[in-house]
Amino acid sequence: MGSEPELPQLTLLALPGIPLIQPGDDLARLTADSLQRAGLALVPDDVLVITSKLVSKAEGRFVNLATVEPSAQAREVAEATHKDPRLVELILRESSGISRMAGEVLIVRHRLGFTLANAGIDHSNVGPDGEDWVLLLPEDPDESARRIRAALGDLTGVQPGIVISDSHGRPFRMGTCNMAIGLAGFAAVWDLRGQHDLFGRVLRVSMTGFGDELAAAAGLLSGQGAESRPVVLIRGLALPPGEGRAADLVRPPEFDLYK
Amino acid sequence: MGSEPELPQLTLLALPGIPLIQPGDDLARLTADSLQRAGLALVPDDVLVITSKLVSKAEGRFVNLATVEPSAQAREVAEATHKDPRLVELILRESSGISRMAGEVLIVRHRLGFTLANAGIDHSNVGPDGEDWVLLLPEDPDESARRIRAALGDLTGVQPGIVISDSHGRPFRMGTCNMAIGLAGFAAVWDLRGQHDLFGRVLRVSMTGFGDELAAAAGLLSGQGAESRPVVLIRGLALPPGEGRAADLVRPPEFDLYK
Repeated sequence: MGSEPELPQLTLLALPGIPLIQPGDDLARLTADSLQRAGLALVPDDVLVITSKLVSKAEGRFVNLATVEPSAQAREVAEATHKDPRLVELILRESSGISRMAGEVLIVRHRLGFTLANAGIDHSNVGPDGEDWVLLLPEDPDESARRIRAALGDLTGVQPGIVISDSHGRPFRMGTCNMAIGLAGFAAVWDLRGQHDLFGRVLRVSMTGFGDELAAAAGLLSGQGAESRPVVLIRGLALPPGEGRAADLVRPPEFDLYK
Repeated sequence: MGSEPELPQLTLLALPGIPLIQPGDDLARLTADSLQRAGLALVPDDVLVITSKLVSKAEGRFVNLATVEPSAQAREVAEATHKDPRLVELILRESSGISRMAGEVLIVRHRLGFTLANAGIDHSNVGPDGEDWVLLLPEDPDESARRIRAALGDLTGVQPGIVISDSHGRPFRMGTCNMAIGLAGFAAVWDLRGQHDLFGRVLRVSMTGFGDELAAAAGLLSGQGAESRPVVLIRGLALPPGEGRAADLVRPPEFDLYK
């Protein structure tokens, strides 16, 4: 990893020994400890991709369904989609509106802007003490990413790029793909407009969803479901400059032909 | 690259010295030559991600717009979207239907099943002799992938996984992301249904768009527009078994709430 590669090369590495996370845990500290155990020192342009579940747990975003009183609308949607009305209540509270509803599928526009199933609320892998706990997405994942970046800078001397990733279904395509829902330290959308191709024509494809490509790449390694690989280091990129936030990856509804 | 990593690790490497491609060029041979120059021997579970443009060029999928006679429908759509009616004629010929049309945007359902802008027809980076040549997607990219895989097996003794990638815009999200439009040698969609999480519950997310994650990861390295990094080697995965085809990544219209 450390030497200058002769060929353009990326390395993705799952950080070892990240423990099961409890509310209040310090993710930056745990990540710095893991890097140290692995004998890795952060270098500029390193990116750490962290699963949203890890961040949600550290931030204590658990809700006990027994404490949730479903509204009339939640009961109606729950009946239509064969879901727990208390879960639907939480989904609606986390959302600015329903995008699609069919069969058992409930796709909403999240208050954070993302269009996704069930507002990203996770019923699996939450805790050992029963089925009634669910886990919401982080309150403000861009802010979480900024905070983790700054804390890692304090602990290690290098501020890495941060992506907080979440697994989303997609129109047109089968299978989920990891997307960036939080990001800090570089431009989430890489704007190549105005650049030219090998023959001097302006590029057809000119803005890439760079933050999402990072999330998807880390998804190859972190896999699904297991919490054994929740933090992936990506090394070898030249990051596009910018303050950076995953909110820039959200297509404004007025430019979305599929909203 | 060659040694067994201690930690779960992926390496992505842009193959050196892939030349500008002409119709009839042998991509498997050029790839094998590049691997040899780089001192790399393929190992089982290696994946090569190849841009669709490279495959289209090798397959001679160029069309001279001067030879295209637009239909009445093409003229109508061209006027509505401010496009060249000859280009629209080709888009419609490559498509089974129009998905959305607004402003200058024309999103179609490709005859291959993919929903994408302009049927993936590329006007940039095609050739030095004028603006009138365009490049269509490969005729049958899954078949192209199978052929390249088999030929590389003959040349090197190892059949690598193959992904043919194309850059697509997406509903909900800003920026393009590379997707798999051709694939061979492993399951395009990784089916984890029935597997359990750390606490014994069935996984919420259970089918991942594995082929698309590979395409997106390679997109980090191959970048946009330039043809200097059109083939990326991904090493370090355990590939999901299966015959494999990118067609499996196409959501059937009857299961697509956004078609």
